Amino acid sequence: MEKIESWLEENRSRFQEDLFALLRLASIGTDPAYDDQVRQTATWIHEFFQSISFTSEWIDTCGHPIIFAQSPHIEGAPTVLVYGHYDVQPPDPLELWDTPPFEPTERNGNVYARGATDDKGQMITHLFSCEAWMKVNGGLPLNVKFLIEGEEESGSSGLNELLAGVYDEKLGMPVAEKLAADIAVISDTSQYGPGQPAITYGLRGIYYFELRLKGPNVDLHSGAFGGSVSNPANALTEMLAALKDDHGRIQVPGFYDGIVELTEEERKQFAGLNFDDEAYKKSLGIDEVFGEEGFTTLERRWARPTFDINGLWSGYQGEGAKTVLPAEAGAKFSFRLVPGQDLKTIKSGLEKLLAENCPPGIEMKLIDMHGANGVVVSLDNPYMKLAANAVEKGFGTKPVFTRSGGSIPVVLSFRELLGIDTMLLGWGLDDDNPHSPNEKFSLSDFFKGIKSSAWLWNELAAK
Amino acid sequence: MEKIESWLEENRSRFQEDLFALLRLASIGTDPAYDDQVRQTATWIHEFFQSISFTSEWIDTCGHPIIFAQSPHIEGAPTVLVYGHYDVQPPDPLELWDTPPFEPTERNGNVYARGATDDKGQMITHLFSCEAWMKVNGGLPLNVKFLIEGEEESGSSGLNELLAGVYDEKLGMPVAEKLAADIAVISDTSQYGPGQPAITYGLRGIYYFELRLKGPNVDLHSGAFGGSVSNPANALTEMLAALKDDHGRIQVPGFYDGIVELTEEERKQFAGLNFDDEAYKKSLGIDEVFGEEGFTTLERRWARPTFDINGLWSGYQGEGAKTVLPAEAGAKFSFRLVPGQDLKTIKSGLEKLLAENCPPGIEMKLIDMHGANGVVVSLDNPYMKLAANAVEKGFGTKPVFTRSGGSIPVVLSFRELLGIDTMLLGWGLDDDNPHSPNEKFSLSDFFKGIKSSAWLWNELAAK
Repeated sequence: MEKIESWLEENRSRFQEDLFALLRLASIGTDPAYDDQVRQTATWIHEFFQSISFTSEWIDTCGHPIIFAQSPHIEGAPTVLVYGHYDVQPPDPLELWDTPPFEPTERNGNVYARGATDDKGQMITHLFSCEAWMKVNGGLPLNVKFLIEGEEESGSSGLNELLAGVYDEKLGMPVAEKLAADIAVISDTSQYGPGQPAITYGLRGIYYFELRLKGPNVDLHSGAFGGSVSNPANALTEMLAALKDDHGRIQVPGFYDGIVELTEEERKQFAGLNFDDEAYKKSLGIDEVFGEEGFTTLERRWARPTFDINGLWSGYQGEGAKTVLPAEAGAKFSFRLVPGQDLKTIKSGLEKLLAENCPPGIEMKLIDMHGANGVVVSLDNPYMKLAANAVEKGFGTKPVFTRSGGSIPVVLSFRELLGIDTMLLGWGLDDDNPHSPNEKFSLSDFFKGIKSSAWLWNELAAK
Repeated sequence: MEKIESWLEENRSRFQEDLFALLRLASIGTDPAYDDQVRQTATWIHEFFQSISFTSEWIDTCGHPIIFAQSPHIEGAPTVLVYGHYDVQPPDPLELWDTPPFEPTERNGNVYARGATDDKGQMITHLFSCEAWMKVNGGLPLNVKFLIEGEEESGSSGLNELLAGVYDEKLGMPVAEKLAADIAVISDTSQYGPGQPAITYGLRGIYYFELRLKGPNVDLHSGAFGGSVSNPANALTEMLAALKDDHGRIQVPGFYDGIVELTEEERKQFAGLNFDDEAYKKSLGIDEVFGEEGFTTLERRWARPTFDINGLWSGYQGEGAKTVLPAEAGAKFSFRLVPGQDLKTIKSGLEKLLAENCPPGIEMKLIDMHGANGVVVSLDNPYMKLAANAVEKGFGTKPVFTRSGGSIPVVLSFRELLGIDTMLLGWGLDDDNPHSPNEKFSLSDFFKGIKSSAWLWNELAAK
């Protein structure tokens, strides 16, 4: 590894030049005006893999192309699947950028550009580490597969078709066989804080619903009719409020059944992160945190299920007073889920509870928008320990193990389709502005990421 | 009265011609493009009063002019104050009218035009009855004052200033003295049904609020933050739902205090109206009526207080799913009130109950939009019995006594400013479309209204 480390040091400025070249391509996947630059970006990656003697396949999809690349095959060695995306968020509002989004600029040790951290800068660390192994050692110590899409920011239509088997013929085999691996790696998240790398080992799931209530066939005058017919807006507040009790406990029958509770070790770990509630409250402009009794803020965010209303509407929303008894009311709401919860149980329990609380004269319609389970990789998973070693080598600091309150659908797909866990090795920082103006990525973390990745191949090969 | 009745019969077609002339004037008070026709309408009324030897005063206001007219004074006789309005609702959508809104057309015994029933056609019955008395008898048997405004459909700014004393100098005396009367009469409502005239003796009051909740300073990602901070949309549903218990009883402390309950006689009267719940449900497209336990539909609509949400908003209301934890949520809601309830008690009780249910981390702001008490005229009021006699003479049928769930602010003003009750003598029908296309008014009811009004002066004078 000494030789590889030296080679990485020597090529530091070239890595940066390559990163800047990649960031200059405006691969805005949502906007057809940029289709040409999207394809140039895919081409850049495709050609990069070819230049380091990987087999690289260009897969045209219903959306933007997917690049699938593999290191030279080593029989019997473990296989790692690396996922990344080369598309970026639209840069608007442009006027809030200090320097243009597609003219990468170095400032205060960071590169500022759209895609710097999400995900070009993070993804490419794994490409450069492979290059190092190929050039210094003539090969990698294990099998690495890359799956890089161009629609992460716009619904992953192509990837979803690929995972569903639509392109099996192009792949020459079933997709599960093509992607088969022992473990997956994604670098598209953040460190716990500056100087404190993290491995995210758990994600919450989600179950998103829309509820529509219909009362009278037209908006009525609340004076002439009020009191004699059910008001859908009142019914909506009553039905949604009934989903929680006075202690904030979610009342959907079976909701908490089967939950894999946090272990003492996990709770100790979270507590060791010294999360600062005061700073958190200040940053959000609130005077109190609030959540499930008996849990800390980090536990509530990362490892407990929730019920949040995402949208509400009914009747008159304009200026002044309008005495309307609305004909309709609606809400969007979602549950965040943790491993062990069952989507079917939740849906049927929810339907039952809502129906019980639906007053006479109101028709309800519950729309199932989408559901996904929570996932957690066991901290005893040997790959996790090896990855932690690699990150420590790269960053000079032991990573902490964190979870995230959000959902990353591809992680669930990998578990369901390939039966493998995903390790989220995030090189970014929480203030990188991935979907906002002035997106940035620390250049020293960029280099530490490359180094960590080079070590990762070494460590995982030892399994 | 025989001579007057004959004279009315003889002038039937002339009344209709005059009505049509008045309806041809597009007195759309909300639209400055029609200011000229609004003034022509006021002029028509002003000159009519002058033509029957009433003193008529043209009062310019901050809005459209008010016409105040008085019959020749009779010392010691009772005084009746008649209120009406000469402005009309905008006629849009024009394409839904079968004949143009300002070309009055006779069809199936009705006149179709904007303003036919609301309120030109109803108001003018009292002008023609006065004309009859003046022309046949040379005078009225009592004192009649007319207060006719041009902004009923657009907020009554001028009337409100008049009632507040702003134009006292123009009036030559305090407004309460100018308008002083023993009883007020308004014809701007409906009969109970075709062939069944009604006197409305009670109106509900209203107390309208807007509630705004603020949580975090920006919309948050519900995955990253959900469960750790109060969600204003959740808080809104909980706080509003807590305003009623499981039996629909309003929980605002002191809300029901002092309510003047329906008498047995009133309940018997309402029951005698044989209100058809099945037809009601069918017309509203609902499968069940619903309201306060122990009361009929009519009692719930006319004589019980309510809590209705008029509008709700928060977070994402568009297509699809957005995982937002909203920064804000809001609602408009109102209570309908019945006599005896106290506005101050309700407001302070409401503030208290909402504050108790407002979760940590949420700032609430309650905006008092407007409040007005409910009013009821005692059925023992001697004027009511006399008015009932008059209506019976005019329509050939005893009127029933009804209440209305809505509010008419001027009725409350008359009580507060002048200390008098108002009798609502409605010549219209529920399907007259007063605020919709194809507004109509039965020409035979128009004539019966004139006849009732002529008898009204006779009856009331006998008090």
